[in-house]
Amino acid sequence: MNSSWRVRLTAEFLGSAFLLAAIVGSGIMGERLAGGNIGIALLANSVATGAALVALILTFAPISGAHFNPAVTLADAMQGRTEWCAVPGYIACQFAGAFAGVAAAHLMFGLPVFFASHRARSGAAQLFSEFIAMLGLQLVIWGCGRARPSAIPFAVGAYITAAYWFTASTSFVNPAVTLARAASDTFAGIRPMDAGPFIMAQLAGTAVVSAVFRWLDSANANENLSAERPEVRAGAG
Amino acid sequence: MNSSWRVRLTAEFLGSAFLLAAIVGSGIMGERLAGGNIGIALLANSVATGAALVALILTFAPISGAHFNPAVTLADAMQGRTEWCAVPGYIACQFAGAFAGVAAAHLMFGLPVFFASHRARSGAAQLFSEFIAMLGLQLVIWGCGRARPSAIPFAVGAYITAAYWFTASTSFVNPAVTLARAASDTFAGIRPMDAGPFIMAQLAGTAVVSAVFRWLDSANANENLSAERPEVRAGAG
Amino acid sequence: MNSSWRVRLTAEFLGSAFLLAAIVGSGIMGERLAGGNIGIALLANSVATGAALVALILTFAPISGAHFNPAVTLADAMQGRTEWCAVPGYIACQFAGAFAGVAAAHLMFGLPVFFASHRARSGAAQLFSEFIAMLGLQLVIWGCGRARPSAIPFAVGAYITAAYWFTASTSFVNPAVTLARAASDTFAGIRPMDAGPFIMAQLAGTAVVSAVFRWLDSANANENLSAERPEVRAGAG
Amino acid sequence: MNSSWRVRLTAEFLGSAFLLAAIVGSGIMGERLAGGNIGIALLANSVATGAALVALILTFAPISGAHFNPAVTLADAMQGRTEWCAVPGYIACQFAGAFAGVAAAHLMFGLPVFFASHRARSGAAQLFSEFIAMLGLQLVIWGCGRARPSAIPFAVGAYITAAYWFTASTSFVNPAVTLARAASDTFAGIRPMDAGPFIMAQLAGTAVVSAVFRWLDSANANENLSAERPEVRAGAG
Repeated sequence: MNSSWRVRLTAEFLGSAFLLAAIVGSGIMGERLAGGNIGIALLANSVATGAALVALILTFAPISGAHFNPAVTLADAMQGRTEWCAVPGYIACQFAGAFAGVAAAHLMFGLPVFFASHRARSGAAQLFSEFIAMLGLQLVIWGCGRARPSAIPFAVGAYITAAYWFTASTSFVNPAVTLARAASDTFAGIRPMDAGPFIMAQLAGTAVVSAVFRWLDSANANENLSAERPEVRAGAG
Repeated sequence: MNSSWRVRLTAEFLGSAFLLAAIVGSGIMGERLAGGNIGIALLANSVATGAALVALILTFAPISGAHFNPAVTLADAMQGRTEWCAVPGYIACQFAGAFAGVAAAHLMFGLPVFFASHRARSGAAQLFSEFIAMLGLQLVIWGCGRARPSAIPFAVGAYITAAYWFTASTSFVNPAVTLARAASDTFAGIRPMDAGPFIMAQLAGTAVVSAVFRWLDSANANENLSAERPEVRAGAG
Repeated sequence: MNSSWRVRLTAEFLGSAFLLAAIVGSGIMGERLAGGNIGIALLANSVATGAALVALILTFAPISGAHFNPAVTLADAMQGRTEWCAVPGYIACQFAGAFAGVAAAHLMFGLPVFFASHRARSGAAQLFSEFIAMLGLQLVIWGCGRARPSAIPFAVGAYITAAYWFTASTSFVNPAVTLARAASDTFAGIRPMDAGPFIMAQLAGTAVVSAVFRWLDSANANENLSAERPEVRAGAG
Repeated sequence: MNSSWRVRLTAEFLGSAFLLAAIVGSGIMGERLAGGNIGIALLANSVATGAALVALILTFAPISGAHFNPAVTLADAMQGRTEWCAVPGYIACQFAGAFAGVAAAHLMFGLPVFFASHRARSGAAQLFSEFIAMLGLQLVIWGCGRARPSAIPFAVGAYITAAYWFTASTSFVNPAVTLARAASDTFAGIRPMDAGPFIMAQLAGTAVVSAVFRWLDSANANENLSAERPEVRAGAG
């Protein structure tokens, strides 16, 4: 990342804004056109969100890393890739961008700039969904980031398209996204009172998976030392 | 681009023609088969358009840059990549190709060669949609073009698939496409009287985003000089 | 292609067989599950066919070139890439594989091995569709093949997904596919009496586009000699 | 694969778990939202499963090879790529991960941890489907693995998306997946009594296709020796 500090923050702001515009806007359009069939609305919503992520991460990854997500920024910093001093700026721009994107989506569809959601998303199953979805997201970023970072845009886009369907919460997996969607009384919204528990579940997932990464890295290091692997043992003869 | 001038113009013509055939043709087919569910029609239309863009940009990018879009050609020239003397020829071929593609789609479905659309697409929300959609399209092309041009076909295809859903206007984002769709009284059409404002909004988006690019480039240059970045400062000690 | 002759023919046979199994099988499944909404059936059919093409071309391209299509083999030979002495074997295996794939699809769904289709697909609009669709397919293969052959699997898969929707004929664009689908009285079928005209239209498209390729290549060669390009002229000063 | 033995097994466990969570979870969500239209439910299920495979194989392939499938591990060992001593551990982790994933999906949707499926999937057509689907899966992995291993995530994801539609069984093609889905009385379930025959058909497909690979490899070797290929003969003059 050879971009300047101001350019990196602008990238996080713009990427988060377009991500939220895509999530909220495609939810509005999907619900309007689906004729009451929520399956068709979520199909549109999930395909549009995944495709937007592919485009946005391809666009901004070389500039800012294309996090658009405080939980990703935190995990990245814990692994020593993002400088800790950059974290507050990143997170502030992600929240600001997310709200700007929600406002843009509302204006594009002739709705109020912000209006609190009445859509209930609560209960243990929903929170467990956010926890699991965050484990998966961080695993995907961690695994691809180690061996094939150029594939991250496709891996994350594909993962989110899938996770919209395989979790009961439709996978918010992003504290900035969660808070901003509380300001949208549309298909993609979440009641403000439910946003806090969602964010807690997402941070819990981030904490657990970061511990797993540390364990995996140390397991790798230890076993490489003790030559426990079959091939290595064979080659030592 | 080692292709001759005539070959480059032919590529812009053919690419624009197939793009319009895909947009208009899949709109006709989608509406005919969707049994009245517009969500299914737009799902078909958006997937077909995005997939066509992937194929056409992969095909023609090495020859002409695969603009198929006067606004992209203008932004490219403003950034010094396309020669200004090539711009009029590019734009003429894009418009000619777009109308040829609409005519081909109509003939493939047994309709008149051209017939003016009666589909109203007007109002501030629609124009704001075109403005925002153009910001995003130019950002995607600019961002990928700087660091990873080989990903542009996938990024643009994915972006347009998403933008069909997250904007109220279904993202025309192309003056040639807009004018040619005014000659099609089908699913993808637009009333001729609404085409002008759409094109104005698209050009406004192009002007604004070009200014943003200049600011970002100068921000990058300035900060690199003043060593404002944390890592750079640390390394200067 | 470092594979032996027998392996190359086996690859064309297997690839054509799985392609037809995907086309016919997903058509059967799509129609059975769509509850009468043909838009949903064609969405399934087009996504499955495009995805199968991505997988099969990635798999067999390094072995046989992954034509699976007599019209592609002919165009390839006309451009001097496939040896002419290989053409009859390729085409025979493509037809044999196509019928084997139809039979496999029928057996997977508990239907007769072969049974003639009663689905009418005739008229000028349908034949014009096949002509246009073949122009596009050959352009995609030609354009990607020159500059970025590794992208052909994605370009062809995306093109066919789109072309299912933007042509009135749903884009057979393959003589072996057309004949084999005449032996299937299912969603993807075509009356045997309509297969001949479809194949004629496909071959006409192949002939026209091959002439275009020759013209483009000579235009490129001539202009490079006469230095007609702006940049070249500028550099000559 | 420079990862330690423990890390490789963890990768197989996690990948299998997320794969099953995606299959079972998206089936539950798809059926709930599709309003009785099974076509829409299977569209969601197939797109989510294919997308999850792209993400998971990109993530875990550099660590464990990303088999997630005892039949793939066996075929891989027969071709001398996976060490035989690793096979039992791999398969145990795949089964354990698969059941963990089913349990996670159930908990995310507020269902019992495990409950036996009542969904009948039997008869010759279904078993033939599993046999054919396994031939195709192993061909895709074998073909891409030889010439372009980095494309395997996309090829396998695309193949499974297609195979959900073109086989009567919706392509389980994985013994661990099959057994774990017997513990889920949801859209993706299979009666325990039907799981055995499915697994037999999958193993038969694996055995047959492994013999085909041996034949193809020997055909390649023999013909290269006897210079039977046209070009080679020409060059020998």
